[in-house]
Amino acid sequence: MSIETALDALSTFLGQRLSRSKPDLEQHGGSETHFPMTPPDAVAYPRSTEEVAEIVKICAAHDCPVIGYGAGTSLEGQTLAVRGGVAVDFRDMAAVLHLGAEDMDVTVQPGITREALNEELRATGLMFPVDPGANASIGGMASTRASGTTAVRYGTMRDNVLGLEVVLADGRVIQTGTRARKSSAGYDLTGLFVGAEGTLGLITALTLRLHGQPEAVTAAVCAFDDMAAAVQAVQATIQMGVPMARIEFLDAASVAAVNAYSKTDLPLCPHLLVEFHGSEAGVKEQAEVFGEVVTDMGGKGFEWAAKPEDRSALWTMRHHAYWAILQSRPDCTALVTDICVPISRLAEAVEDTRADIAASPITGPILGHVGDGNFHAILLFDPGNEEEAKAAKDLSHRLVERALALGGTATGEHGIGLGKKAYMQAEHGDAWDVMGDIKRALDPKNLMNPGKLLRDG
Amino acid sequence: MSIETALDALSTFLGQRLSRSKPDLEQHGGSETHFPMTPPDAVAYPRSTEEVAEIVKICAAHDCPVIGYGAGTSLEGQTLAVRGGVAVDFRDMAAVLHLGAEDMDVTVQPGITREALNEELRATGLMFPVDPGANASIGGMASTRASGTTAVRYGTMRDNVLGLEVVLADGRVIQTGTRARKSSAGYDLTGLFVGAEGTLGLITALTLRLHGQPEAVTAAVCAFDDMAAAVQAVQATIQMGVPMARIEFLDAASVAAVNAYSKTDLPLCPHLLVEFHGSEAGVKEQAEVFGEVVTDMGGKGFEWAAKPEDRSALWTMRHHAYWAILQSRPDCTALVTDICVPISRLAEAVEDTRADIAASPITGPILGHVGDGNFHAILLFDPGNEEEAKAAKDLSHRLVERALALGGTATGEHGIGLGKKAYMQAEHGDAWDVMGDIKRALDPKNLMNPGKLLRDG
Repeated sequence: MSIETALDALSTFLGQRLSRSKPDLEQHGGSETHFPMTPPDAVAYPRSTEEVAEIVKICAAHDCPVIGYGAGTSLEGQTLAVRGGVAVDFRDMAAVLHLGAEDMDVTVQPGITREALNEELRATGLMFPVDPGANASIGGMASTRASGTTAVRYGTMRDNVLGLEVVLADGRVIQTGTRARKSSAGYDLTGLFVGAEGTLGLITALTLRLHGQPEAVTAAVCAFDDMAAAVQAVQATIQMGVPMARIEFLDAASVAAVNAYSKTDLPLCPHLLVEFHGSEAGVKEQAEVFGEVVTDMGGKGFEWAAKPEDRSALWTMRHHAYWAILQSRPDCTALVTDICVPISRLAEAVEDTRADIAASPITGPILGHVGDGNFHAILLFDPGNEEEAKAAKDLSHRLVERALALGGTATGEHGIGLGKKAYMQAEHGDAWDVMGDIKRALDPKNLMNPGKLLRDG
Repeated sequence: MSIETALDALSTFLGQRLSRSKPDLEQHGGSETHFPMTPPDAVAYPRSTEEVAEIVKICAAHDCPVIGYGAGTSLEGQTLAVRGGVAVDFRDMAAVLHLGAEDMDVTVQPGITREALNEELRATGLMFPVDPGANASIGGMASTRASGTTAVRYGTMRDNVLGLEVVLADGRVIQTGTRARKSSAGYDLTGLFVGAEGTLGLITALTLRLHGQPEAVTAAVCAFDDMAAAVQAVQATIQMGVPMARIEFLDAASVAAVNAYSKTDLPLCPHLLVEFHGSEAGVKEQAEVFGEVVTDMGGKGFEWAAKPEDRSALWTMRHHAYWAILQSRPDCTALVTDICVPISRLAEAVEDTRADIAASPITGPILGHVGDGNFHAILLFDPGNEEEAKAAKDLSHRLVERALALGGTATGEHGIGLGKKAYMQAEHGDAWDVMGDIKRALDPKNLMNPGKLLRDG
């Protein structure tokens, strides 16, 4: 067995830091969503880029697959070891390597989580704003091209990674990007590795763009009769140039779950949750503009959360929405899916999806990032009930088809992994083959996270 | 000759729209800067993506190089036909294909210039803000990953291209990206083709992110005793979260040239030119913050240009700075170079370059985009004077070495072309080989703009 030979060599190299214990393998073979357990053959815990490079070289010599592993919060099965091999867990590579406060950048190892990073930054007046909800690792967030609630203002990981250190499939270590804010010096390899889901190499360091902690922050919650009005309010506000920091929506089903979980009493209709960042005066002005637009569009129950504790309660409620929805049917598994469409088609996409779910035997609250045209359906099904499981899959399938028909994408922020591979041909056509050409050029033996994102075979 | 065979086939296909006239060849073989005339064997003027694909297929069949051509404003020899072949001029592919006002996006053909595009957008309340100074074509701006004066606020072409249509080296046509604002669906091919300088394919359509025309705009000019104070003022302002739309600097030599050319009477010391975009109140607040910072840093002669005509005069002066500098020694050629460094190292980079130029036999004003850490030296030399020509090359060489030593890049916005290839190994190391691997995977016969950006051979 070539994997076994690789494991012997890795065990000699890493000693106790190569684990083959059952709990370790199961932890690294699990998923937060509906994918079946698919453990690796071993888990490696490297402590340096040099060790990662050596691990990859050993695996390359013995045709052993290599799968990067951060916090395990991906939703499309990105870390599952579908062809066995070694999970490289970056738990012990979670340091801040360099803080460039004057340049508003930071270089970190991939295992640091976004919350830990922001904790380290707290006293500097700077922050790393990308916020996918889960306390994901920064390396994982880059690999999935994560975004979340603040992307409408601060961009996604694509916009906030300035440079990378990557271990390639043959063990070479490259640097992409520089500490300059921009560059025209050749192909944008940073952008290529961000979102590659570990299929082109393992990210071992990242230089990130930081942003100033806003002087003032205000948040608000507001109810609408229907999604169309909510989306129109957001469109109008964006077109007026108001730099909203967060614009989230919850449908009525999400509100019901949130009310039950967070002991809130929001009316059971679509809601927007918004946040403004800026100077005291700037935030006040933005909020006034938004308030006027919302009133014009029939928004009601407008409630400000200017105090930090109220704001914190609001976003805790939003971040717990996923758990609140899971709790609403505790016996169920969730098929969590996300799509992204042009904002002009968002209301239509949400309403059609809403109706489609209502006509099915299962429940599926919808919520998302309305400023980006990105939303999630959390399709709850009893894994023992075949009809429900099929209904969830069918709904998810139609949701993606709807997104593509509306000029959108199969996933705004969760990535492809295993769950969305079936849509790559429909979304990309021959461009998917180009991705395959690049993959073969950089990983000819198909050892870096095989079975994900790319065409099989 | 295989190129001749290709030209015969192209001539049959395009008729009069394949030109071999001397003026046409010379126009397409020239450069705005110091590169020697290097004409193609023919110039093609396609009218559709299908025609571009057919041109590329014919060229592929006969091993004939293909070079995309927009407005001819590139500065590093990107369009020179160093191995002969066909220049594909996008003059007749300059239409707006779709304006999505609600989604704040637009799809255009590559030949449209940024000024023509903004003219088309004028009545919509939207704008395409990327402004490299020259009235470049949008396709060329994408291929060079252009940026310019507004990148500090609105980003570069990397940030403002949502999707592309590309004709690959084998004539296949692919679409990258969607009209959704973000996506995690596979490798970021859009980002790969932006900045590839036509070496991976020809861009035949682009979907661009638009921005709202600001409600209010204010600009100002301000003098400083030295660059360090000017840079500190900018750093402090950015860290306070003020979203400056433009932050340009001119050194004393640039100011002298500008004064002579634009009949201004700015004092002969470093200047900042700034612009703020926002609401009436927002712009006022931003300007006040900046004014206070500037005063703290010893800025003087602060002058606002709130009226559109004053503002227009200010930016016309800035945009004409290149011509003003050329006029200051009308017998000379310019070696125009650009580098980008972390902002914390910008003052040092400018001062060291200043001193280096002062110790040389030639003049070379320095100006640039201080908010990005990006600046240009316009090195003026008499092309008939070997000592001057050598001094310009040596200064440019040391400038790039300085940038790399300070953690920066060999080019912030002009690209690699021919002029910066010598620095790719130093800046990228093995990552340059990875670019070569990608090139070989997508263009195995090396026919797409050969001789540029990548390692020779």
